[in-house]
Amino acid sequence: MKNTKQRAVVLLSGGLDSTTVLAIAAKEGYACYCLSFSYGQRQVVELVRARETAKRYGASDHLVLDLGLDRIGGSALTSELAVPKSDGLAAGLADENDIPVTYVPGRNTIFLSYAMAWAEVVGAFAIFIGVNAMDYSGYPDCRPEYLEAFSHLARLATRAGVTGSSLTIHAPLLTLSKSEIIRQGTALGVDYGKTHSCYDPDKSGAACGRCEACQLRLKGFAEAGLPDPAIYQSGRG
Amino acid sequence: MKNTKQRAVVLLSGGLDSTTVLAIAAKEGYACYCLSFSYGQRQVVELVRARETAKRYGASDHLVLDLGLDRIGGSALTSELAVPKSDGLAAGLADENDIPVTYVPGRNTIFLSYAMAWAEVVGAFAIFIGVNAMDYSGYPDCRPEYLEAFSHLARLATRAGVTGSSLTIHAPLLTLSKSEIIRQGTALGVDYGKTHSCYDPDKSGAACGRCEACQLRLKGFAEAGLPDPAIYQSGRG
Repeated sequence: MKNTKQRAVVLLSGGLDSTTVLAIAAKEGYACYCLSFSYGQRQVVELVRARETAKRYGASDHLVLDLGLDRIGGSALTSELAVPKSDGLAAGLADENDIPVTYVPGRNTIFLSYAMAWAEVVGAFAIFIGVNAMDYSGYPDCRPEYLEAFSHLARLATRAGVTGSSLTIHAPLLTLSKSEIIRQGTALGVDYGKTHSCYDPDKSGAACGRCEACQLRLKGFAEAGLPDPAIYQSGRG
Repeated sequence: MKNTKQRAVVLLSGGLDSTTVLAIAAKEGYACYCLSFSYGQRQVVELVRARETAKRYGASDHLVLDLGLDRIGGSALTSELAVPKSDGLAAGLADENDIPVTYVPGRNTIFLSYAMAWAEVVGAFAIFIGVNAMDYSGYPDCRPEYLEAFSHLARLATRAGVTGSSLTIHAPLLTLSKSEIIRQGTALGVDYGKTHSCYDPDKSGAACGRCEACQLRLKGFAEAGLPDPAIYQSGRG
């Protein structure tokens, strides 16, 4: 049976969105090739969650690549810039063009490029990515027109394009709100206690409850009318 | 004066094509940010040449990133597949779709993605790449329509796209033959003795004279009516 499954590369950070996407791809019957990246990010706990999650969903393979994005710089997530917190650094949440300081230049393009390369090698014609245009409207590379441009590029960049096959980018969360994502994942049985969102966790992996990612997550659970099973630092969340 | 220069990210492998491209970008007055990649490639000597070349052309910066492409696989250049030689393995030069086995899936897309990310960080609005549609017609990601698709993507993927600026991909060698590239580079003073092309050099860095890259290079010099100053293994070239 396994050999007859269509293959998909699933970008998996270990966070709430990408875990939901993996659940969707698995439910749709794909043999999932999970791809995670280490890019000088501070939240090492995310990769631990990604490994556990790939295993839990019976991924056909899980590749973790070190990207050296910290050497390129330009973001609070890959350098020593302060991650904005809702209780003091709100002014740092975005630059003059409303692009958050947590935006990592080129990140999704680099992620999708590796996914495209791996898809070509393993014979997958689908890539799943958890980008979301609702909560991340300030990120240029989370917009629907960006994904369309990448799909077009991927058709031209690969053997698939030469042989007439086509690689499809699936972004099932693109137009969902965080609460809709949480409701859909919950219906699919996702254990959100095993997903990580915080940009600034403590050493035990407990979330800060105050960064942009924690705030979006907490708001999402509140709007979905569900408790957030994640562990927060005492007095937060 | 230096601060008033426009900045460009130049993809620099240390080979004949990319060195010519750097000479062109420098001649056009750009402050050049050279970007090289280590990707499990066997030809370490290329990176040595890239470092020397970046220095020789007074690059504003030179970044060498390790990409882990060998972990993705799928090419004779990043794995243990035999590099085809003209004296025996000619049948391995291309697959059934005329795509050479030396094609690295996703390579140019990954290279351009990093270039785009770094361009955004350093404030460059130009990327120079030495792709060539004449000698590498079998590579899907060396076609003009591929580069147009990447330019479109880059406009959407970056802050530049949000703010109305635009990032331009310059591929000055795109429609040139190897001999035309060599003639243009020679006119610009490029020292081709300091460029490396061979897929399978010996330990001293001497070229094999027989692989696809050596054959293209030798043919190019012959057609240009110029001697190739590269060092070849004895009895070759």
